[in-house]
Amino acid sequence: LSDLLDPLFTTEKMRELFSGRARLQAMLDFEAALARAQAKCSLIPAAAVAAIAAQCDAALYDIDALARATAQAGNPAIPLVKALTERVAGDDSNAARYVHWGATSQDAMDTGLVLQLRAALALIQVDLVRLSDALARLAHTHAATPLAGRTWLQQATPVTFGLKAAGWLSAVERHRQRVHALRATVLVVQFGGATGTLAALGAQGPDVAAALADELGLALPDLPWHAHRDRVAEVATTLGLVTGSLGKIARDVSLLMQTEVAEAFEPSAPGRGGSSTLPHKRNPVSSAAVLAAALRVPALVSVMLTAMVQEHERGLGGWHAEWDTLPEIATLTAGALAHVVATMEGLDVDAARMAVNLDISHGMILAEAVTMALAERIGKPHAHERIERACRAGVAEGRTLRAVLSDDPVVSAHLTAADLDRLLDPRRYTGQARWFIDRVLSVRPRDR
Amino acid sequence: LSDLLDPLFTTEKMRELFSGRARLQAMLDFEAALARAQAKCSLIPAAAVAAIAAQCDAALYDIDALARATAQAGNPAIPLVKALTERVAGDDSNAARYVHWGATSQDAMDTGLVLQLRAALALIQVDLVRLSDALARLAHTHAATPLAGRTWLQQATPVTFGLKAAGWLSAVERHRQRVHALRATVLVVQFGGATGTLAALGAQGPDVAAALADELGLALPDLPWHAHRDRVAEVATTLGLVTGSLGKIARDVSLLMQTEVAEAFEPSAPGRGGSSTLPHKRNPVSSAAVLAAALRVPALVSVMLTAMVQEHERGLGGWHAEWDTLPEIATLTAGALAHVVATMEGLDVDAARMAVNLDISHGMILAEAVTMALAERIGKPHAHERIERACRAGVAEGRTLRAVLSDDPVVSAHLTAADLDRLLDPRRYTGQARWFIDRVLSVRPRDR
Amino acid sequence: LSDLLDPLFTTEKMRELFSGRARLQAMLDFEAALARAQAKCSLIPAAAVAAIAAQCDAALYDIDALARATAQAGNPAIPLVKALTERVAGDDSNAARYVHWGATSQDAMDTGLVLQLRAALALIQVDLVRLSDALARLAHTHAATPLAGRTWLQQATPVTFGLKAAGWLSAVERHRQRVHALRATVLVVQFGGATGTLAALGAQGPDVAAALADELGLALPDLPWHAHRDRVAEVATTLGLVTGSLGKIARDVSLLMQTEVAEAFEPSAPGRGGSSTLPHKRNPVSSAAVLAAALRVPALVSVMLTAMVQEHERGLGGWHAEWDTLPEIATLTAGALAHVVATMEGLDVDAARMAVNLDISHGMILAEAVTMALAERIGKPHAHERIERACRAGVAEGRTLRAVLSDDPVVSAHLTAADLDRLLDPRRYTGQARWFIDRVLSVRPRDR
Amino acid sequence: LSDLLDPLFTTEKMRELFSGRARLQAMLDFEAALARAQAKCSLIPAAAVAAIAAQCDAALYDIDALARATAQAGNPAIPLVKALTERVAGDDSNAARYVHWGATSQDAMDTGLVLQLRAALALIQVDLVRLSDALARLAHTHAATPLAGRTWLQQATPVTFGLKAAGWLSAVERHRQRVHALRATVLVVQFGGATGTLAALGAQGPDVAAALADELGLALPDLPWHAHRDRVAEVATTLGLVTGSLGKIARDVSLLMQTEVAEAFEPSAPGRGGSSTLPHKRNPVSSAAVLAAALRVPALVSVMLTAMVQEHERGLGGWHAEWDTLPEIATLTAGALAHVVATMEGLDVDAARMAVNLDISHGMILAEAVTMALAERIGKPHAHERIERACRAGVAEGRTLRAVLSDDPVVSAHLTAADLDRLLDPRRYTGQARWFIDRVLSVRPRDR
Repeated sequence: LSDLLDPLFTTEKMRELFSGRARLQAMLDFEAALARAQAKCSLIPAAAVAAIAAQCDAALYDIDALARATAQAGNPAIPLVKALTERVAGDDSNAARYVHWGATSQDAMDTGLVLQLRAALALIQVDLVRLSDALARLAHTHAATPLAGRTWLQQATPVTFGLKAAGWLSAVERHRQRVHALRATVLVVQFGGATGTLAALGAQGPDVAAALADELGLALPDLPWHAHRDRVAEVATTLGLVTGSLGKIARDVSLLMQTEVAEAFEPSAPGRGGSSTLPHKRNPVSSAAVLAAALRVPALVSVMLTAMVQEHERGLGGWHAEWDTLPEIATLTAGALAHVVATMEGLDVDAARMAVNLDISHGMILAEAVTMALAERIGKPHAHERIERACRAGVAEGRTLRAVLSDDPVVSAHLTAADLDRLLDPRRYTGQARWFIDRVLSVRPRDR
Repeated sequence: LSDLLDPLFTTEKMRELFSGRARLQAMLDFEAALARAQAKCSLIPAAAVAAIAAQCDAALYDIDALARATAQAGNPAIPLVKALTERVAGDDSNAARYVHWGATSQDAMDTGLVLQLRAALALIQVDLVRLSDALARLAHTHAATPLAGRTWLQQATPVTFGLKAAGWLSAVERHRQRVHALRATVLVVQFGGATGTLAALGAQGPDVAAALADELGLALPDLPWHAHRDRVAEVATTLGLVTGSLGKIARDVSLLMQTEVAEAFEPSAPGRGGSSTLPHKRNPVSSAAVLAAALRVPALVSVMLTAMVQEHERGLGGWHAEWDTLPEIATLTAGALAHVVATMEGLDVDAARMAVNLDISHGMILAEAVTMALAERIGKPHAHERIERACRAGVAEGRTLRAVLSDDPVVSAHLTAADLDRLLDPRRYTGQARWFIDRVLSVRPRDR
Repeated sequence: LSDLLDPLFTTEKMRELFSGRARLQAMLDFEAALARAQAKCSLIPAAAVAAIAAQCDAALYDIDALARATAQAGNPAIPLVKALTERVAGDDSNAARYVHWGATSQDAMDTGLVLQLRAALALIQVDLVRLSDALARLAHTHAATPLAGRTWLQQATPVTFGLKAAGWLSAVERHRQRVHALRATVLVVQFGGATGTLAALGAQGPDVAAALADELGLALPDLPWHAHRDRVAEVATTLGLVTGSLGKIARDVSLLMQTEVAEAFEPSAPGRGGSSTLPHKRNPVSSAAVLAAALRVPALVSVMLTAMVQEHERGLGGWHAEWDTLPEIATLTAGALAHVVATMEGLDVDAARMAVNLDISHGMILAEAVTMALAERIGKPHAHERIERACRAGVAEGRTLRAVLSDDPVVSAHLTAADLDRLLDPRRYTGQARWFIDRVLSVRPRDR
Repeated sequence: LSDLLDPLFTTEKMRELFSGRARLQAMLDFEAALARAQAKCSLIPAAAVAAIAAQCDAALYDIDALARATAQAGNPAIPLVKALTERVAGDDSNAARYVHWGATSQDAMDTGLVLQLRAALALIQVDLVRLSDALARLAHTHAATPLAGRTWLQQATPVTFGLKAAGWLSAVERHRQRVHALRATVLVVQFGGATGTLAALGAQGPDVAAALADELGLALPDLPWHAHRDRVAEVATTLGLVTGSLGKIARDVSLLMQTEVAEAFEPSAPGRGGSSTLPHKRNPVSSAAVLAAALRVPALVSVMLTAMVQEHERGLGGWHAEWDTLPEIATLTAGALAHVVATMEGLDVDAARMAVNLDISHGMILAEAVTMALAERIGKPHAHERIERACRAGVAEGRTLRAVLSDDPVVSAHLTAADLDRLLDPRRYTGQARWFIDRVLSVRPRDR
């Protein structure tokens, strides 16, 4: 659907990995490996392997013809196996007898999918590491760069930009671990034959299954999982979690880029973020693409979960619903990740503007600092009430918090002018920002 | 993503309608119409129109280059307008001044989308009419063909297959009306310029807007709707409702096709529904594709609804999330609809098997008939309890309900053997099936 | 689940309307009406009506006991009818024979639901009208109050606050029409008996059905719709569209309330929007609740659509999935709507701050105005390039657009100082704001 | 909303765990632990602890009043802390100064949530273990009970019921591991103060944070995670995966319970699964409730993922969207799990009917067995074609596959009558069913 939009929403590598051609190749890789495994187990003649393997190249097949046949057959493995058998037969009619021996179409499709997912998760990991590195640099560099902390979209108390980056980084590190852990669960072969009993292979089923897994570098699961989709659904949920965090980062960046805030910006480049009519704008193009992914992926995850309700030994409709959905999740996640990587590797941080914005509340962003200091003397309820009154007065009269407090006899009785100067300096009220940053940085793996 | 799967899940026409090429053409149609409208209003020279219109052919553009530029610009209209302007300038530098005059990229994209949706809804309507016709024929033909009515997946009381078809038909007719009503809401032009004020056009904004709408055969909305997406979201929800009903039909068909039920079948054809390993199977291929759509579309609808939260005058991310999502909804709906049309036009109904299956409960499917007759004599609670006991006895002893009831003195006191024969004939217990069928058939428009 | 949170997320009236008690009452209203309708048709003795109706008061039933029985029976109508029958029998054993005569549990539940929805839609309509009125006042009052139009979260060109309100209003008016139109589709009786044939009523089915519909003030559908859920699903999608627009409004308000923007605010009140630690904050509490609804409702809509795939004559699981979901959609929509009504009826608009913010781009927000004026002289491409360069220079040198343009000989050759003053006045570049506002206001119904 | 429906859809324990009262208690547990931790660090007087802890009992608070105040404040922690402070002050005005010291409302809410989730996950684990045990028994008992394997809802080749149970079990075991692994990620304290810097605690922030975590038996995360929601979202996705598998099991059970299949049944009980009008039915009540959960939970998961896009240091709307959604996921999952536990602990398996149904395809369910045997002699393509033809002939002529094959000279040339008898015995064509079952059973932890 989206030849025009793919470069905005995904990466070329990930898109390529889930192309129709790549899907065919992954199934053909299964078929070739199956032949090798069965020859190893002496189930089929060694001579048949080369004849079969020679035809296991997706470039040999007419994808449009297969697509049309898929519409009749109900899945692409059926016409592919038929075409493969015909090609092998053209070369070696004896070998053709052994194509797809004992397997079912879903064995080829699911194992092929697992092979695609192995490559996809590797791509995701590479970019998570790049993102982690970029964020670690930002956390380190800006560990002491103060800016307004914002809650409910209101300035609250100061933070540092390094702390903000460390928060993003911490989530990214958790996602790295999730994706890593996922590999152990999902990288398993699918091989069960018609209803998951391997009956067609007689006594040799276990040996062939083990040899097949070995050929493909995949684990052998306890039993075939044709209608048990938690593994592939977990790929979806894990990538959904990743995309959620990417969306959070993009939302932050786009809010920081607002004309009225202007504290950090996506990197600029010719032709990037310009408007067709407004020459002065700097649109958060990457953030828009990431936010779009963060809106789309959760719904696609819900499809994968709803589709888990698959009937009996192999399901109807649920399995079919996965075929485009999981690739779409992977490609959107990859695209969002690439955008955030590029943004963070080239983020344009305006520390001066951050300092300016810390001032626009006339010191009220530090109300808590004064409240806590005062609370140590007169108790939190009274302190809270006193400072709240001062803030209201300041807003009403257009005066700074500093000015209002200086006039307050209760405050003056407990806090000196120097106390107020110190308390109202945002750089001095960033709490444990550095400690938190160090904790996050320290858990990153040194050596990758 | 899905060159291999598109013929299974969508129709060629609908897929074509939402191709990258078609999307470009729709935007170019907007640009050409805008030039004509502005010339009509004497805002731009009449001479410029031909020069602009001559370049408004999507075949002239390099879609891959535009796609790459889209990734930088954030939407495809920006590079398209740039390329269009360059092409016009190559031919007539004066005309190039007037390309896209006073418009914003979203004007082109949204109006282009509306043009695509107009064509898409027309395709949907055509197939809804075909489906309605096919279902009307089934309702008419099988008005008196009894089969087991099933609730909670349990046989309950008899219905007729015509009534079943009439139920499907009734929903389809409501959808026809929904799609029809939708056209009035959604077929409006988008034209507002940068922030929806048409400020760049000075006093001529209203005239140009009206002329533009006229050129395109679209209505003029009360004001631009860049960040108000209920119209396009309603296309999504309406098609979501359609797909839900199609999924219901497909579920019914696939259940009827079960080996153990075998009452109705999707039409068969060479290469259709065969299994790669099981020569005797008849897979419900169309139902699978439809059920997959019925799992996928609702989530895509939720994306369109979530994406309605678009910021200020033109949003960030929400709008972008729509671009692939709405076309995906339309193409999946079209595919599901085409499958159900084909299924219903060629449905293979086995009335004999329906009759056989009506018998497998040993008459208990007519327990209600006897209960109601008995209830008229001894009250519903007692009748219900009596027949429930008879059913339990029948099940336990492997006897028919008829046999157990004949032995029951209370029943015999109130119902004769002839009564029982009549009450236990499923053809006589289909209630108002025909009246309902007639009601449904009577509200269909005669003339289309 | 949410006794603690309901007042934040819904209204008391709507919550009451979907309480367990109200659900029981709606089903009992069906049972009473059914008895009256059947007496009217002489199917049951007139004397039975009073005995049955006397027990059709939800206050008479033990809701916890019914809830426990529901867990066994699979739906609440089954134990309710049982309890009702027992109560009637205690009073009049003959009347007890006629309770729920010929009906199925889903008849009671669905018709009960329709009665609840009738009241719910009426509540929604009342608040949509209130919101429409409040927005119309804002659109009128602030028709000429300029503020920055913002696209992609960047200042673009000026708009007026009245235009912003008119955009919200236009969507609200469309929703009023949608909700109104919905009533004709959804306010129909459900009455079909076990499998939708009304077989248990013999020849009197049609008369009873018509009388029942008449008793309840509902329309009689063409046939029973037990497993055809498009009507109730359309309630969900329609409310989903409403909530999407409410979310858009809340997003706008929360962005306007940002400390750095501060142009409009939710009404304040004691205890409202305060922070437990930050005395100076003014949290957008209503917007938060509305945005939460706008995140939750779309997913709930997808449940209703996915659940449409219901098997045969009455479904399994899909129907059950609706029971809490549709009420949740209605209550969340009502809560969001009430928040937006309150916000708009008391919105605190700071026109002075809007004016200040229009200035922070040093005039660049009016770059388009100058571009278009210049374009009339030197063509759009050249003008666009010239002004883009000026904007970049202004940003780099920290000068206003006015200052940079005054130094540009090309600009000076075409535009006088007075031209520039006029072009750079935001009040003069709000285009057709007023025309659009008038169009929106003019289509509102005068008399409600 | 659902007092009437909760017993059907959830368990009393889980419902209790997420009641408003329990939510209050969890926040109060945080406040008490905070006081203890701060006293330990000498930040507050030891004497204050008892005074604060004494009021940390949810039974002391007026939940309705707090609910109303929540609607104003925007979250329940704000009025709760206020009420708590007032109660403490009534007893010990000095202690009141130290209530909630340095914390923000989200610290109390999130940590409270984590405490609730700890209990919830423990409940889920207990029932997963029970389910695992029940399924292991079924897998063991029915390891050699043949029934039709079904793919695309069509009989395919035989399996055993033990293998079916082992497939369910394998998924359940993976879920047990997922839930176990989840605890390490999610069971962490939330403690950051206003913007996650702990600034209000000065230098003692780290010590207090560690002591607080220690008090609650939770881990100390690297930094506060107010706006980074992947941990709680992962609870949602993990439970979503669990519910998907439960839905798959329920779908299988409901299909097996169909009148026409009748191979296995939910346990029966008085008042269970009866119909109000049809005395002979045995409705799959538990399956319906589970399937409803499997439709609802995925959408709720998507809400949690979409809501991850939370702004800056603490978000707006996204966080609020979680509050009812995650509890709803937990309660629905618990309810579905309890239903499946009860079903599997009492499953009524009809092995005789399974054997009968294996026969209804007139031997064609064993077509693959004959095909593979013949393929060893004449190659798979020829064998497949030959048997396919035989199946078609059998269907057309109403003869068994055995009869048709006996007449086929090619078949007779390669397979004897004894061969055919052996090949057409379903008990001999269940392949590696037992090997697979043993693999699944062997990985279960011995000792729990």
